[in-house]
Order: sequence, then structure tokens, then C-alpha cells
Amino acid sequence: MELETVSKNRCFGGTQGVYRHDSKACNGPMKLAVYLPPQAEQAERDGRRLPVLTWLSGLTCTEENFTVKAGAQRVAAELGLIVVAPDTSPRGQNIPGEDESYDFGSGAGFYLDATREPWSKAYNMYSYVTRELQALVAERFPVDTARQGIMGHSMGGHGALTIHLKNPGTYRSCSAFSPIVAPSQVPWGHKAFGGYLGEDRAAWRQYDATELVRERPSKATILIDQGEADNFLSEQLRPELFAEAARRAGQPFELRLQPGYDHSYFFIASFIEDHLRHHAAALKG
Amino acid sequence: MELETVSKNRCFGGTQGVYRHDSKACNGPMKLAVYLPPQAEQAERDGRRLPVLTWLSGLTCTEENFTVKAGAQRVAAELGLIVVAPDTSPRGQNIPGEDESYDFGSGAGFYLDATREPWSKAYNMYSYVTRELQALVAERFPVDTARQGIMGHSMGGHGALTIHLKNPGTYRSCSAFSPIVAPSQVPWGHKAFGGYLGEDRAAWRQYDATELVRERPSKATILIDQGEADNFLSEQLRPELFAEAARRAGQPFELRLQPGYDHSYFFIASFIEDHLRHHAAALKG
Repeated sequence: MELETVSKNRCFGGTQGVYRHDSKACNGPMKLAVYLPPQAEQAERDGRRLPVLTWLSGLTCTEENFTVKAGAQRVAAELGLIVVAPDTSPRGQNIPGEDESYDFGSGAGFYLDATREPWSKAYNMYSYVTRELQALVAERFPVDTARQGIMGHSMGGHGALTIHLKNPGTYRSCSAFSPIVAPSQVPWGHKAFGGYLGEDRAAWRQYDATELVRERPSKATILIDQGEADNFLSEQLRPELFAEAARRAGQPFELRLQPGYDHSYFFIASFIEDHLRHHAAALKG
Repeated sequence: MELETVSKNRCFGGTQGVYRHDSKACNGPMKLAVYLPPQAEQAERDGRRLPVLTWLSGLTCTEENFTVKAGAQRVAAELGLIVVAPDTSPRGQNIPGEDESYDFGSGAGFYLDATREPWSKAYNMYSYVTRELQALVAERFPVDTARQGIMGHSMGGHGALTIHLKNPGTYRSCSAFSPIVAPSQVPWGHKAFGGYLGEDRAAWRQYDATELVRERPSKATILIDQGEADNFLSEQLRPELFAEAARRAGQPFELRLQPGYDHSYFFIASFIEDHLRHHAAALKG
């Protein structure tokens, strides 16, 4: 697959790259960020491969937010982790309404495959992440596909939880910051799922972490950090819904409520080190 | 002095704030970012004060770039440092040409006091930083004015070096990333100094670190990090000019050339921890 280099910057002894490629699932060009830690060069020479984490961002974000704000590279460099951050939706599809709201369309792909026209021609972030991006990264970077983890924030936390629960053998470790855990029960989810999937509630269940964990809990311990001063906590996020379902289903998890923290990248930066260590420990085993 | 809160975010157990106030030196509202580490609350209760570092950003930046990209809060929280980051110029002065180029006018105050009309009515970043911001921060935050350091990047590295050398008793420690060290000898400096100060070369000398260090070296060890893959290295930055003058004048300094690193915040993030530890060690003594 063709991969065009947008930028490369030396960072903590490794390389932070941004790339562009043509996506079938998303019907056009997509950008992604890839951090290669210092260990990657030697690994490539030795024919070894490194664990890889995929980060999924939240509403309004691109591949850039996490890359410049989270400070993940420092810990990834220490632990020898490759970190991949895709964009959050297709771009420039000229679909009416695509750019009208922050929580639907551009910047709001919700990591699902749309079934409603005209969104279904491009808004297929689930297939993009789990198949196309998966194959692209495996082909172009020295990643060990047997040691993959997934994490994300808000809408991207929803993506990380659902993609892990649906593919526990591929994405073996999982963590989330302030995730949307029950989209079928909150306004962001109603709007997105109604728009992308229509009113068939059965279709919604396969992208709802709280529903999924009831049916197919994984063996991994899912780490969730949630700021207690998060403006979206009680209306959109509601982590207690997931916690209750996970407890009943026997899903191992740790939900940490962090006093005073909000929904911003200042929160993510404060705890990203714990998340990377959580994944590294799980993927070492 | 009035200080309006623009935002406050919990970050590494402390608080990242952004504030706005009316500046006399800059003839209008100015924004600044202040990070208070976790130790600040207890210090205020005990009537103790913490060391403070001022960060000066480079061309095109505002108070935001360093605050969201450098990852300094983690180390500031560990070391108990307050970190202040002002904007890089006055804003919205309606001076013809103010917004026409990235290296003069808005976003390019060069940390000097302009003497040429009409710039002199507002473009007084030297007085702003060393007097107005100094007094404002001392009044509103629990800073120990006897333990202050200054640091910056590019144009802000020039600001840090010159402000330290002119005020070594106030800003006792100093460091810089990829600083403009000899503005009188490079295109960025020619344009800015000509525009703000006119053609009187004697006036230029007081804002030129390479000139200043000859006349008044300080006792502090100045730490400079410079990326070897920096596009501006040979034409605009030329750290060897400062190094040579510093050596002859007996100015203690450490110039570290970092292979593969460029001019970006990925470079700053990679080494900001070393800079904060450099300041903390100097200010402890």
C-alpha cells in the first residue's frame, strides 16, 4: 500500500511521523500518526517486531491532537512501544450535513460501519481501523501483530472498548479515558447511531460497549480513567453503566475516578503514562 | 491588578490556568498561562513561596503552544515549580503591517522595547516581561521572587538569554532551545531590530545576547539545546557565535547539539525535563 509521508520529527530518540494514504473503507485519503520508539531501528535490523498500541481520538479531533498534546512519546520510547493514531472520520465526502455539527459527520466517525445512505459509502471507521489500518501498519512498520493494544478518549474510548470486546484476540489490551460506554443510552450515541445505522436497535448493540460486555466479556483487565469534573460525565459518559454490566459479566476492569480532572488533554497527559504501562505489562505476558 | 480567568484545568495534580489582563506596556489585553504545581496549595496555606520559571515562546506562538505541547507540567509538578508563559507580542493594535509577516509584528515581539513609532506605543515586551508580568505574577501567585529562572525557544531563547544577562540577580537561572543568539548578525534580527529600533546599531547591542555576554557575563551556567537538523540553524540561529563570545568572556554555559532534532515542539518536549531540572538545581542553591 502507498503511504505518503506528511512529516517526520525526531522525538524522544524515536520518530513521530504523519502519513497519508488512500482508504477504500473511508472512500478517500486518510491521515495517521505513527510514533516509532528508538528501539524500532535496531528491531528492524534484527528482524524483530515491537508491540503496537492504537489510539482512537474523540469528537472534533484529527490524528494530531493526541500526537502533540498527550506526551505519550516519552513513555513509548522508554517501553519500546509503537503508537498509531488515525483520524476520527473520513474527510471531504461532500455529503450534505457532513460539516454541520461537531458530534456527527466529519470528526465524528464513531468507529462503526454506517449502514445508512449516503454515509455508508465512506463512514466505515470500524472496518478502517480493524482491517485497513491494521494491514497497512503491519506492512509498513515493524509491529508485532500478536502484541496489540487499543486505547482512546471519549468517542475514541467507545471505539477502544468496542473494538477490544469484538476482537480480543487481536487487540489484547484495552484502556480508555472518559469513554462513551453506553451510546444507546446517551444523546451523542442516539444522534450518531440514528444517523449512521438508522433506527434498528439490534444494529446499535454491536457498537455499544455496555451491551457487548454482557455478551462477550474479555479476559483482559480494562483500565478506565474518568475525571470527576468532566462536564460530560453524567449526561454522555456514565461509566457506571459499563461498570455494572462488566461486574455482572465477570469482565475484569479498573475504573478510576480522578478528582478535579475534566475532559481535556491536560487530563489525558496526566495519566497517559499509567495507560502505556498497563498495555506494556499486558502485552509482555 | 485585575486578572481574568480564561480557563483552568487540573493537570498532574496541579492547575494549568490561562488568564487575561490589561497591560500598560503592551497597550491592551494580554494573555498568559500559569502552571501551579500540586505543592502550591499547601505552600499558600503555609505562607511559603515556590520557585518560578518564565518561558518565552518563539515566532508565531501564543501562550498556548508551550502549555499544550511541551509536557513541562509533569516535571514542574515533581519539582514544585511554577511556570509562567506569556504571549509573544501585543495583539490587535491596528498598526499597518502588524499582521503581514510571521517574523514581525503580531507574534514577533522579540522581547524588546520598540523605539520607533508607531510600534513603540505597544511593542514593549521587554518591559512587559521584566516589570509588568513580574509584578503581576508576584502579586497573584505564591512565587518566590528570589528564586526565578527564564527559558525560551528560538525568538524566546533570544529573550531568555538577553533578559537573564541584563537581569542576572532577578532571573538567576537561564536555558534556551534553539535560540536566536546574535540577532544583529542574522536576517530575523535585522528585520525586527530595524523595524522596532531603527538603524541605530548601538540600540541593537542591548538586545543581542552575543554582544551582551561580552560585556556582562553572568555567573549562572546557561544551558542551550540545539537540534542539528534544525532548518534555521545555519542562517538564523548560529549558536557558535554565542559559544565563542561566551567562552572568551568566561560565561559558564553548556551547548548541546542534538543529532536529528529539528525546530519543533517535539524537540522541546524531548528535552524539557533536563531544562527544568537545570533550573531547579540552580535555584535550590
